[in-house]
Amino acid sequence: MRMRKKKWAAGLLEARDDVMIYEPSGLQGKWKTIVLCDVLHVEIGTGKGDYWLTMAHQYPQEGWIGIERNTDVAAIALKKAADAVLPTMKLIRASAEYIDEWFAPQEVDVLHLNFSDPWPKKAHAKRRLTAPSFLKKYDTLLAHDGTVQLKTDNSGFFEYSLLSFLQEGWILQDVWVDYRREEHPEDAITEYERSYMEKGQPIYRAVFAKAPKEAVE
Amino acid sequence: MRMRKKKWAAGLLEARDDVMIYEPSGLQGKWKTIVLCDVLHVEIGTGKGDYWLTMAHQYPQEGWIGIERNTDVAAIALKKAADAVLPTMKLIRASAEYIDEWFAPQEVDVLHLNFSDPWPKKAHAKRRLTAPSFLKKYDTLLAHDGTVQLKTDNSGFFEYSLLSFLQEGWILQDVWVDYRREEHPEDAITEYERSYMEKGQPIYRAVFAKAPKEAVE
Repeated sequence: MRMRKKKWAAGLLEARDDVMIYEPSGLQGKWKTIVLCDVLHVEIGTGKGDYWLTMAHQYPQEGWIGIERNTDVAAIALKKAADAVLPTMKLIRASAEYIDEWFAPQEVDVLHLNFSDPWPKKAHAKRRLTAPSFLKKYDTLLAHDGTVQLKTDNSGFFEYSLLSFLQEGWILQDVWVDYRREEHPEDAITEYERSYMEKGQPIYRAVFAKAPKEAVE
Repeated sequence: MRMRKKKWAAGLLEARDDVMIYEPSGLQGKWKTIVLCDVLHVEIGTGKGDYWLTMAHQYPQEGWIGIERNTDVAAIALKKAADAVLPTMKLIRASAEYIDEWFAPQEVDVLHLNFSDPWPKKAHAKRRLTAPSFLKKYDTLLAHDGTVQLKTDNSGFFEYSLLSFLQEGWILQDVWVDYRREEHPEDAITEYERSYMEKGQPIYRAVFAKAPKEAVE
């Protein structure tokens, strides 16, 4: 479903320089100072912002950076956030393929992938946010004890992601094939997630830790 | 649902010495000679036998050993198999906890776990057929390129099994969180599996390979 182009979107983004980050590549190594937090979360594909907004309010001692490449969608997130934006929240309107230029090595503590585009065709596999080329970037920018937390409704994307992370040497720290079978108040429900839950469809979730690095002798 | 005790079960098992194996521990290292096959499959928890029987007929060049601890259930499998039992098929009526006494190291090529008892209570976790103590036995009796193929309808058991195998160093070779989303004519459908499919419930499946052993220097 394609949204009607929102004429007000670009203007809204420009007006919100309290939260929008226009030049993320100039901020490498400075993010924790900017959000005044010791723990940095980054959500790739913030969408309409429910997760970003809810989690930032649920964990106000931690920093929450959203990334959303679609201007109109980012504008909806901003509109929804309105006056509820905290100083710990920032939003980058750009494609995540450049993520390794925005954050310094080991600067990020938790990377969130929520209902990422599954790119179901094999020919598009490289575009999946869990393709090996992306995992190498995540490995660089995550802290040693950092994790990637992934949620999806798409069984094929989930299967691909499990195999991709494990083949790249990551550790499967936890896994759920029906995450909302039990209550998880510690984790916010996204817009997409709610619609799948209402249809009785399972939510898949996995937490991956970085491979332990060989000690340098 | 508890079955009514079958008075004829023990007698039927005794009468079928063409297929029943009464003293498996005496056959260590001899199984491929007995079934006259180079590839040996072992199914733990054969149940009413649909998988064992169908797969043995689908792959008649390979050996199929079933293990079922319940006498009445084993008798149902035998009754169903009737005259369709092939020389490549054998059935052991015993509990799988002694499996390492029946097969020699590396004698088995594929181990099948179909809809194993999930033992959902944490206090019973050790009884699960994917608990670490069992995985160590499987590692011993499987060939170097051997695999464990696991299917279940139980999300909690599947999650536990994924983590258990990976923590023990096994390789996740393939995984499905909705196995029957696509046709898989290469793999037979069990009695339980059919009933879950008819209810529209997902079937989980994973294939695990043994951890590569360090080369001896």
